[in-house]
Amino acid sequence: MKYFNERLYDVAPYTPGEQPSSKDRVIKLNTNENPYPPSPKIKEVVDSILSEGLLKKYPNPNSSKLCEEIANKEGISKEQVLVTNGSDEALSILFRAVLGANDKVVAPYPTYSLYPVLTELALNGSSIEKVPLKGNLHFDYIALKSAKGKLLTFASPNAPTGILERKQELLDLISSFKGAVLCDEAYIDFAPNGSSLIQEINRHPNLFVSRTFSKSYSLAGLRVGYIISSKENIQLITKLKDSYNVGMLEQAIALEALKDQPYFLSNVQKIIQSREELTQQLSKLGFYVVPSSANFIFVKPPKSIYPIDLFEHLKKSNILVRYFSDAISKDYIRISIGSKEECEILFGKIKEYTIAKNV
Amino acid sequence: MKYFNERLYDVAPYTPGEQPSSKDRVIKLNTNENPYPPSPKIKEVVDSILSEGLLKKYPNPNSSKLCEEIANKEGISKEQVLVTNGSDEALSILFRAVLGANDKVVAPYPTYSLYPVLTELALNGSSIEKVPLKGNLHFDYIALKSAKGKLLTFASPNAPTGILERKQELLDLISSFKGAVLCDEAYIDFAPNGSSLIQEINRHPNLFVSRTFSKSYSLAGLRVGYIISSKENIQLITKLKDSYNVGMLEQAIALEALKDQPYFLSNVQKIIQSREELTQQLSKLGFYVVPSSANFIFVKPPKSIYPIDLFEHLKKSNILVRYFSDAISKDYIRISIGSKEECEILFGKIKEYTIAKNV
Repeated sequence: MKYFNERLYDVAPYTPGEQPSSKDRVIKLNTNENPYPPSPKIKEVVDSILSEGLLKKYPNPNSSKLCEEIANKEGISKEQVLVTNGSDEALSILFRAVLGANDKVVAPYPTYSLYPVLTELALNGSSIEKVPLKGNLHFDYIALKSAKGKLLTFASPNAPTGILERKQELLDLISSFKGAVLCDEAYIDFAPNGSSLIQEINRHPNLFVSRTFSKSYSLAGLRVGYIISSKENIQLITKLKDSYNVGMLEQAIALEALKDQPYFLSNVQKIIQSREELTQQLSKLGFYVVPSSANFIFVKPPKSIYPIDLFEHLKKSNILVRYFSDAISKDYIRISIGSKEECEILFGKIKEYTIAKNV
Repeated sequence: MKYFNERLYDVAPYTPGEQPSSKDRVIKLNTNENPYPPSPKIKEVVDSILSEGLLKKYPNPNSSKLCEEIANKEGISKEQVLVTNGSDEALSILFRAVLGANDKVVAPYPTYSLYPVLTELALNGSSIEKVPLKGNLHFDYIALKSAKGKLLTFASPNAPTGILERKQELLDLISSFKGAVLCDEAYIDFAPNGSSLIQEINRHPNLFVSRTFSKSYSLAGLRVGYIISSKENIQLITKLKDSYNVGMLEQAIALEALKDQPYFLSNVQKIIQSREELTQQLSKLGFYVVPSSANFIFVKPPKSIYPIDLFEHLKKSNILVRYFSDAISKDYIRISIGSKEECEILFGKIKEYTIAKNV
C-alpha cells in the first residue's frame, strides 16, 4: 500500500559532498568548509548556557537577538530577517512558500544542485528550467530574461564556478522577472565589499537574499542561516518555519560569531589570500582557473589530464575535492580553499601529478 | 503582486506558548518543559567539540551515532530511525511526505494544536477532520474508525488531557485505518513502562512513532527529536529532510543525554511523583484532575471558579499556565509539572484563590 504523496517515490534525493569520519586523516576540500575554527569567543556563551541549565527551556522562537544584530549590521529592520536552521531551511521554506501546483522555477545551470531537488520536493508537479551558462561560464541574461516562472534562483557568487556576476546585470534581471527571486549569497563574504544585494531589498519587492554562517563564519557544524526580504514577504514565509526552528546554542553562538567581526574579517582575508596564491600557482602549471569570488576555485587541468583522474588521484592521496559530471562541469574540478598548509600540500600533489603526466 | 502559493496568505500560523525573557522571574508551567536541567555529562562533549574547533566542518548528515543509540535502546534497526530538528520537524516532514492535493487528515480533538496547522501548511488543499473526544475525554474509537483519510495523527499520551489510551484500542484503530498513522509520543516517558507503540512498528507497516528530547530529557532548547517506522518508510521521508538537519552539538548532546539513563530515570521519577502529589492536593481542594500519564495535568476547577479567571490570576502572580478556548478545553487549565518547589508555590496560590472564591 502506498502511504505517501505519489510524487515522493520518484524523487532522487540530494547528495551532499562526502563527509569522512573525523578520525580519518583527510584534507577535506570538497564541501567549501572554512579551514579555520570559529571565533574563540563562542566558548564563554556556551558555558554560561550549560552551567545555568538553560537548555531545559524552549529557545526564543524567532531568534530575536540574532535578528536584531543582523539587521543592525545590514542597516535593515529586524522584521526583514528570518533566521533558519542553516540556509538550507531558508531555501526549503521559500520554495514551499512560492510553489503551487505545476509551477516553474528558473535557474542558471550549473549552479547549487539543491535547487532542482527543492523544486521536486514541492511534490506538486513543479519543475525547473535550467538555463545553461554561456561558454565563458557567465549567466546567459538573454535566455534568463526570456524564461518565465514563479521563482528565479541563483547563487551569487555562483557555485561551482565561483564567478560573481556584475551587480547591475543581476538587478536588471531581477527587475524584469515576473515572480520571486532568490539570490543565494552563501559565499558573498569572499567577494569584494559591496557585492551583496541586501542593500537592494527595499527597491525590489520580489527579492530574497539568503546567507549562511557555515562558510565565512566557520560554523558549518552549527546550522544557522537566514533570509532577508521585505517585511511583508518575511511575515508570510515565517508561517512555514517550525515554531522553534533554531536551537538556543545555535542562536547564541551565531550571535557571538557575528559580533566578533575582527576575527571574522581576518579569517576571510587569509582565505582570499590563499585563493589568489593557489590561482597563480595552478595557472603557471597550465591549469585554467576560473576567476573566483568565493572560497573555492573551479579549475580546468591542462589537456593531458582528465579531471576525473586528477580527482581520483587526489582522493588516493587523502585529499578530497569535488567533481561534477554535468556537461559543463565535467572538464573541471572544484577545490575548496583550505588552510595555507593544506593548500601547499594540495599544490604539491597536483604539481607532482601534472609533471608525471607531461613526461 | 502575489509571489506566493495562494493558499499561504490565508494560513493562520501556529502560536507556541508564551516564552517570557529568561530575566523575568516567572514560574513557567505553560509549555511542558522539564523543571530540571539536562544531564551534567553533556558539558564534556560540548567542550571537546569547541576546543577542537570542529564546528567548522559539516555535521554527520544522518546523525548516525545517535540513530544507532536510539535503535539499540529500542531494539530496532538504525535504518528505522530518522533524527530531526525537534519532533516538530519530524511531524512537518511526515505531513509533507503523505499529503497530496486535497487529502484528508484525521485527528481526535482537542489534541496537539500543531496538527491542523501542518495540514494547512501542505498548501495543497488538504484538510483535517477533527473527531471530538468523548465526554470522558477519551478517544471516540467508533467515530475515528469510520473517518477516512490519508493520515491519522494522535498524541499518546494525548495533550492537553494527559490521558493514555489503552494500547489494544490504539492498535485496533491503527489496523483499521487505511492510510499512514502518526503516534506522537512526546510525553510517553512519563507514562507507565511498556506504553510505547515502538515495539509494534514491525507489525504495522503504516505506523510512525515520533519522540522528542525536549520534555523527558530536559532539552527543549536543543531541538532534537526523531521518528521511527519501517526501513522503507524512513528511507522515503528522509528525502524531505534538509541535508544537515541536525547540528553537531545537537547530535552530541542528545547522544550523551540518552546514554545517561540513570539521570534521566531519576528526573522522570521526580516529575511523576510531583504530578501525583499535585493531583491529590488539587482533588482535595475540589478540582477535577484528569488522570495524567504526562508531565502536565488538565484540571477543572470547582464551580465557583472560571478557568480563565484562575489562569489570569496565576499570571498576575507570575505563574504561567495554559488555557485553551476550544469547546472541550474551555472548562480546564493545563499545568506543566514544575519542580517540587514550583509545585508548592503554585498549589499555595491556587489554594488561596479557591478559598477566597468560596467565602
